[in-house]
Amino acid sequence: MSAPSPAVVLLSGGLDSATTLAWARGRGFRCHALSIDYGQRHAAELVAAKRVAHALGAVEHRVAHVDLGQFGGSALTDPEIAVPTDGPGPGIPMTYVPARNTVMLALALAWAEVLGARDLVIGVNAVDYSGYPDCRPEYIAAFAQLARLATRAGVDGARFNVHAPLIALSKADIIRLGRGLGVDYALTVSCYQADADGAACGQCDACRLRRAGFEGAGLPDPTRYAVREAAGRTAP
Amino acid sequence: MSAPSPAVVLLSGGLDSATTLAWARGRGFRCHALSIDYGQRHAAELVAAKRVAHALGAVEHRVAHVDLGQFGGSALTDPEIAVPTDGPGPGIPMTYVPARNTVMLALALAWAEVLGARDLVIGVNAVDYSGYPDCRPEYIAAFAQLARLATRAGVDGARFNVHAPLIALSKADIIRLGRGLGVDYALTVSCYQADADGAACGQCDACRLRRAGFEGAGLPDPTRYAVREAAGRTAP
Repeated sequence: MSAPSPAVVLLSGGLDSATTLAWARGRGFRCHALSIDYGQRHAAELVAAKRVAHALGAVEHRVAHVDLGQFGGSALTDPEIAVPTDGPGPGIPMTYVPARNTVMLALALAWAEVLGARDLVIGVNAVDYSGYPDCRPEYIAAFAQLARLATRAGVDGARFNVHAPLIALSKADIIRLGRGLGVDYALTVSCYQADADGAACGQCDACRLRRAGFEGAGLPDPTRYAVREAAGRTAP
Repeated sequence: MSAPSPAVVLLSGGLDSATTLAWARGRGFRCHALSIDYGQRHAAELVAAKRVAHALGAVEHRVAHVDLGQFGGSALTDPEIAVPTDGPGPGIPMTYVPARNTVMLALALAWAEVLGARDLVIGVNAVDYSGYPDCRPEYIAAFAQLARLATRAGVDGARFNVHAPLIALSKADIIRLGRGLGVDYALTVSCYQADADGAACGQCDACRLRRAGFEGAGLPDPTRYAVREAAGRTAP
């Protein structure tokens, strides 16, 4: 019997990436979890990532720091730009972080090459995806092609797989998948502006999508909200 | 008359990237210079980058920090791996940093998107290139394609150009080009293990290529070597 293959799993500490890690474990990968601290407001996610990596059996969890915040341009990294709380509008929202998934996948690729891993796993989603360009299937395919050209392993003929198992799932389907794989969503933090303890605002797009997902899946929402009334006010 | 277009120019502080910046200025770009501190041994390059950015008229110079060093796997970031000083061997050398150019271009792309720039400039070279996979034309083309798919601007129909003006030039040609554009190579540091003052070892691959380049161009080598004899010992 051959040893399990290593995979690098991007793990933000949110609902989607926790599900992704559980999926990768279920597929038999030896999971090396990687969280990226890119100056995001919701640093509570990184605390959650550590809990999730442990709970879901990652063999290792690392945090890579990179100061995307210095470039600005996103409500998630620039304190001058407010996180929208009035529901989704047209176009790409202000929570889009320029080139975020490219930076995160590049770092995952760096670690994968050192580990000898050929599999990267990322929890992007093109359905309830908030309109981010770097969550689309054609983007994921282009990164896999780049990875082959970028690396020593690729020169030696290896292919890289970029797995995005959630890409075509609704939030409710993601939650059903994760529950079936034993994910405890109480450990995860999705809110774009969670407080230091990880309590959610209940009002940003990420909170809205998350709550609607639990409702759609017919499951109780284990999210801890900072202000009980806020949760009530924004319920559909 | 239209305003000059902005470009993000990756600037290590070495000979190649200084030439690249001079090229971009000569092409009329408003140059935003970006240095990446990825935990490399040759931090003296970053000091040189600041000098070079100023001398060659960049409108701005930033340093982005990212800890690639934690992944290891390269003589440039892992103190346990020695920098080779016995001349080029077969295959990809230990100075290869996994996914380095992908990480650097991803960060350049992040800044470009915030600036509204559609042009990235990188000083990779596929001739005297030390055998790195991410210095090949097909890699550069794949990144340009990825950039289009990764970004808000790409969704809106923009194309990104990844300029690699040195890719097909010999080191001697690069030096001739830069001298013609007014580059003062005494400001640059190429050595993989320069000391804190930027003095070069004279023995690593980068030093060997650089010295051979000045010889090939028929120009005096302005490099400051840490040990005068070391320079003599390795001269062809």
